[in-house]
Amino acid sequence: MDMATDLQDFLIRLDRDIRARGDWGEVADYIPELARIAPGQFGIAVVTADGALATAGDATKGFSIQSISKVFTLACVLGRIGEQIWTRVGREPSGLRFDSIQLLETEDGRPRNPFINAGALVVTDELLTGRGPQDALAEILGFIRTAAGDDDIHIDRAVAQSEAGTGHRNIALAHYLKSCGNLRNAPELVLGTYFHQCAIEMSCVQLAMAGRAIAGLPDAPPVLSRARARRLNALMMLCGHYDGSGDFAFRVGLPGKSGVGGGILLIAPGRASIGIWSPGLNVFGNSHMGTHAAEALARATGWSVFG
Amino acid sequence: MDMATDLQDFLIRLDRDIRARGDWGEVADYIPELARIAPGQFGIAVVTADGALATAGDATKGFSIQSISKVFTLACVLGRIGEQIWTRVGREPSGLRFDSIQLLETEDGRPRNPFINAGALVVTDELLTGRGPQDALAEILGFIRTAAGDDDIHIDRAVAQSEAGTGHRNIALAHYLKSCGNLRNAPELVLGTYFHQCAIEMSCVQLAMAGRAIAGLPDAPPVLSRARARRLNALMMLCGHYDGSGDFAFRVGLPGKSGVGGGILLIAPGRASIGIWSPGLNVFGNSHMGTHAAEALARATGWSVFG
Amino acid sequence: MDMATDLQDFLIRLDRDIRARGDWGEVADYIPELARIAPGQFGIAVVTADGALATAGDATKGFSIQSISKVFTLACVLGRIGEQIWTRVGREPSGLRFDSIQLLETEDGRPRNPFINAGALVVTDELLTGRGPQDALAEILGFIRTAAGDDDIHIDRAVAQSEAGTGHRNIALAHYLKSCGNLRNAPELVLGTYFHQCAIEMSCVQLAMAGRAIAGLPDAPPVLSRARARRLNALMMLCGHYDGSGDFAFRVGLPGKSGVGGGILLIAPGRASIGIWSPGLNVFGNSHMGTHAAEALARATGWSVFG
Amino acid sequence: MDMATDLQDFLIRLDRDIRARGDWGEVADYIPELARIAPGQFGIAVVTADGALATAGDATKGFSIQSISKVFTLACVLGRIGEQIWTRVGREPSGLRFDSIQLLETEDGRPRNPFINAGALVVTDELLTGRGPQDALAEILGFIRTAAGDDDIHIDRAVAQSEAGTGHRNIALAHYLKSCGNLRNAPELVLGTYFHQCAIEMSCVQLAMAGRAIAGLPDAPPVLSRARARRLNALMMLCGHYDGSGDFAFRVGLPGKSGVGGGILLIAPGRASIGIWSPGLNVFGNSHMGTHAAEALARATGWSVFG
Repeated sequence: MDMATDLQDFLIRLDRDIRARGDWGEVADYIPELARIAPGQFGIAVVTADGALATAGDATKGFSIQSISKVFTLACVLGRIGEQIWTRVGREPSGLRFDSIQLLETEDGRPRNPFINAGALVVTDELLTGRGPQDALAEILGFIRTAAGDDDIHIDRAVAQSEAGTGHRNIALAHYLKSCGNLRNAPELVLGTYFHQCAIEMSCVQLAMAGRAIAGLPDAPPVLSRARARRLNALMMLCGHYDGSGDFAFRVGLPGKSGVGGGILLIAPGRASIGIWSPGLNVFGNSHMGTHAAEALARATGWSVFG
Repeated sequence: MDMATDLQDFLIRLDRDIRARGDWGEVADYIPELARIAPGQFGIAVVTADGALATAGDATKGFSIQSISKVFTLACVLGRIGEQIWTRVGREPSGLRFDSIQLLETEDGRPRNPFINAGALVVTDELLTGRGPQDALAEILGFIRTAAGDDDIHIDRAVAQSEAGTGHRNIALAHYLKSCGNLRNAPELVLGTYFHQCAIEMSCVQLAMAGRAIAGLPDAPPVLSRARARRLNALMMLCGHYDGSGDFAFRVGLPGKSGVGGGILLIAPGRASIGIWSPGLNVFGNSHMGTHAAEALARATGWSVFG
Repeated sequence: MDMATDLQDFLIRLDRDIRARGDWGEVADYIPELARIAPGQFGIAVVTADGALATAGDATKGFSIQSISKVFTLACVLGRIGEQIWTRVGREPSGLRFDSIQLLETEDGRPRNPFINAGALVVTDELLTGRGPQDALAEILGFIRTAAGDDDIHIDRAVAQSEAGTGHRNIALAHYLKSCGNLRNAPELVLGTYFHQCAIEMSCVQLAMAGRAIAGLPDAPPVLSRARARRLNALMMLCGHYDGSGDFAFRVGLPGKSGVGGGILLIAPGRASIGIWSPGLNVFGNSHMGTHAAEALARATGWSVFG
Repeated sequence: MDMATDLQDFLIRLDRDIRARGDWGEVADYIPELARIAPGQFGIAVVTADGALATAGDATKGFSIQSISKVFTLACVLGRIGEQIWTRVGREPSGLRFDSIQLLETEDGRPRNPFINAGALVVTDELLTGRGPQDALAEILGFIRTAAGDDDIHIDRAVAQSEAGTGHRNIALAHYLKSCGNLRNAPELVLGTYFHQCAIEMSCVQLAMAGRAIAGLPDAPPVLSRARARRLNALMMLCGHYDGSGDFAFRVGLPGKSGVGGGILLIAPGRASIGIWSPGLNVFGNSHMGTHAAEALARATGWSVFG
C-alpha cells in the first residue's frame, strides 16, 4: 500500500469499521470539561513523506491535546538547553500510571521520564527559567504553529481552568517535586503553565502536520535536528503510553504519544506523521479506538519499525 | 555507508578505537566461571540483508550467551503455544534490575516481561510442559542451530554448574514463582534448564547468523513468521536491557538483548543482524563496550529505527 | 526510686549529664522558624500519680509542639465521632518517614495511622467537618488547655506562617489525599489548620500536665475515658516515632509522641506524664537528647511497660 | 479480678462464649499437615505471678507453635551473642505480610525484624554458627523445656516434613538472603532447622509456663535477664503480629506472638504468662478466636500495659 489513494481508501474503511464497532472506551472524567465530550467520535490524518495528506472521520475537529503537549515542550527545552535536561529527569519507562508519585519518593525527586506527569512538570519548570508563563506558553504555541505550518492553534482556557480546579494529583506532584528541590519556580506557576499547555486544542490534521519534523519528513519545517527527532521517537516508543507502552509497542510498533483527551501523535520515522483522535480511553488512559486505529494502520502499511 | 567494504572498514576502525580506549567495565562476578574471563576483549559480526558478513576483533570466539538465550526460548514457546504465554508473563518494561523480585510480590507473581529473570523462568517452565529438561534444551539448541545454520553450538556445562551453585537470586525467584502458582514444574527442574540455556556458548558470528530471522533478512531460515519477529523486536526494544532499556533505545535506537556474559544480539529490522561481545559490564549489567559499539554502528550506518 | 525527692535529684543529674555530653543532634531545617532555635537546650517535667511535679533544665521554656499536636487532635476527633475515624485512617505502623507519600498511592489514599503527616491531615479534615479553621483550632486549644489546666497556651503564628510558606511535602500530601477522595474540605483549609495546630507552643511542664489524662493519673481533668486513653497509648507506642517507633519501644518501653520541634510527650500509664524537650533531632526526626532522656528515665524508674 | 477463682471462672465463661459463637476463621492451608486441623477448637492457660494456673478448653492439647518459636530462638541467640544480632536484622515493624520479600530487595537484605519470616531465618542462621541443625534444635528445645519446666515438648516431624515440601515462599526468602550475603550457612540447612523449630508441638499450658521468664514472673526459671525479657516484650508488642500488630496492640494492649498454627503467646509483664490456641486465622494470619480471647482477657483483667 504505497499510493495515496490506497491510504485514503484504507482510512475511510477504518473509520467506517470503528464506528460500526461502537466499542469506544470511557471518556476521562477527572477533568470536568473533558468529561462532557461525547465518546463516539473518531478522526485520523496521515501526512506522508511525499507531502500528501489523507484523512477520515473527525479529522479537522479540535480536541484537547493534553499529554501530547509534553513532546512539544520537551522539544522546546532540548532546543534551549540540550541534553542538560537529563540531569533533572530520566529516560526510562516508569511502569506506573501517568500520574504516579511513588517513584519520586524512592528516587529522590527525579522523575523517570519526561512523558509522565511528574517529568513533564520538570520540563515545564525548565521552560520557565528566566521568564513567565505567558512567554513560555508563547514559545510552546509558536513551536507547534511553526511545526504545523498553521497559526490557527490556540489554548482552550476553559479546559485549563477546569483542570486547575480539580487537578489535585498534579498539584501534589508539583509540590512534591518542589520539596525535593527539583522545581525552580513556584509550583503554582509551573502548574498554571502546565494546565495551559495541556489545554492546547488541535485537530488530527494539525497534529499530523506538527509531527512532520519528528517523523523526519522531507518538507517539514526545520524545528528539530534529525538527531533530536530520533531521540524524541525513542522516548515516545519507550515511554509514550505510560504503563501501556510495552503493549503499544508490541501491537503497533511505532513511536507515539497519547493524551487523556483521546489524541495520539503517531510517528512512522521517515515515512509519515499521523494524528489520531477518539476520546474514549482504555485502562492505561490511552485512546481506546485510537490505539486500535494505530495498530490497524501499522499492519496495513507495514510501517512498524520492527520489521 | 552501504557497501560491504565500507562496513568492514568501519568495524575494523571501531575495534581499534575500542581497544585504544581501554575502558572495559567490570566483568560479572556472581557467576564464578564468568568472573575468570579477561575484560579486555571485543568482537563484532554483522550480517546484512544481502547475506554479506563483516566482522572485527574476537568475532569467532565463543562466550556464554546468558540472557540472550531468553529471546530464543521465547521464540520456541511462541512457536508452541503462541500468544497464550502472555497470560503468565507481561510485556511491559519493569524499571528494575534483571533479577528483581519485588514486583512478583506486588503483582501476584506475574513477571513484567519475559526478558527479566523472573519472566524467563516462566517461559522456560512453559517449555518444560510435558517433557524433561533434556528435551527442552534440545529444542532450544535445535532452534538456535537452525536459525544460525550452524550445528557447532553447545552448552558449556562448567558455566551451568557454576551458576547452579551460586545462583541464589534465581533460586529465590523460581521458588517465589512456585509459591504464587506461576510455575508448573518443580523449581529445581526449571532452574536446571534455565542455567543450561544461559550457558549456551556462541560467537559473535554465530549470534549474528542466528538473529537473521528476527531481523527478517531475506535468506534467513524460516524459524519465525514475520509477525512474530516484529513482536520479538518490540519486546527487545522495550525490555531488552532491563532498567537500562530506555538509555539503550535513546543512544542506539535498535532492538537488542544483552547477556551478563557481555554479549549483545542487535537487530536492524530488514537490514542486518549483529552479534557483539565484550565481557565488561556497565551499571545496568549490559556490556559496556558492546553498548558503545552498538551506538557507534547505529550512528555510522543510520540504521536507527527512529529516523 | 519512688519518692519525689529521688526523682527530682535524678532529673537534675540527667540535665547535667546531657549538657556535659554536648551531643545535641541537628535542628530541623525545613521550617525556617524552627531552624533558628539553638540546639543546646534541654528540659524535662514529670508529673506523677500523686500529683507531684519534678522538673529540670529548660522545663518552662515554650517550644513548638508540632506533631505532638496529632495526639490532641485525634483525642478531639475520637470525642466527636468515636471509632468511625478508622474508616479513613489505619492503626498500623508505616515503617516509613513521617512525611512519606508512597503508601497513599499503593493503599488507595488511606494513611497507615493518624500520627504520620498524611494521617494527621485526615484527622484535621475530620475536625473541620461543619465548621471553619478558627473553630477547629479553638477546640484543639481548648482541649489542651483543659487537659493541662493552664489557659496560657497559644499558637505561634510566625511558626505557622513559616511552615505554610515552605511545607511543600505537606501540601503534596493534602492534595494527594484530596485526589483520592479522602479529604472533605479544601486542601488549603486543612493545611492552614494543620500548620496552626503544629505551631502550638507549650513548655515541658505544660506538656506533662496536658498528658495526665492520657496517663490515667488520678487527678487528671476528665477529658478522656480510660478506654480511649489506653488506645491512644497503644497508638503512641506503635506509631508515635514514625520509622523509629520500634527503636523507641525497644530502648524506652513507654508510649510517646515526638515532634520535629524537639518535644516528646511520654506516658507511663498509671504512673506519670512526662514532657521532654531538646531541639536537636536524630535520623528519624525525633529529639536526639529527648530520646536519650526518655530511655534514662525509664531505666532509672523501672516504668517500662514491658517489665 | 485478682483472685484465682475469678480468673478460672472467667476463662470457663470465655471458652463457652467462644464455642457458642462458632466464628472460627480459616485454618492455614499452605502447610498440608496444618490444613487438616479442625478449626472449631479453643484452649487457654494463664499462669499468674503467684504461680497459679488457670485453664479452659483444649488447654492441654498439643499444637504446632510455628512462628511463636521465633521468640525462643531469638532468646537463644541473644543469650549467645547479645545485641550483635541487630547488625543483621532490624527492630521495626514491617507493615507487610509475615512472608513478604520485597523489603529485602529495597533494604539490602536486612530484614525489618526477627519476627517476620525473613528475620527469623537470619536468627536461625546465627544459631547455626559453628554447629549443625541437630545441636541448634537441641538448644531451642532445651531452652523451651527449661523455661516451661517440662521435658515433654517435642518436634512434630510430620509437620516439619510437610512444610519442607511446600514452603516455597520460605525457600525463596532463604536464597534471597543468601544472595544478599546475610546468611552464613547453606539455605537448605537454615530452612531445615527453621521448619523443625516451627514444628515444635506445645499445649497452651506448656506455652504459658514457657513464657513465665518473658513475663518476669517471680518463680520463672532463670533463662532470661529482666532487661532481655523487657526487650523481647517490646519486640512482641511492635512486631509480634506482622501487619496486624497495630490492631492487636490497639485491641489487646499486651505483647504477644502468634503462630500460623493458631497459637498465641501473650505476656502481661509482671503479672501473667498466657498460652492461647484456636487454629482458625484472621486476615493477618493470626488466630481469629485467639485474638478475641486475648482482647477479652485483657479487658476483664485490666492487664493492658496501656492503662
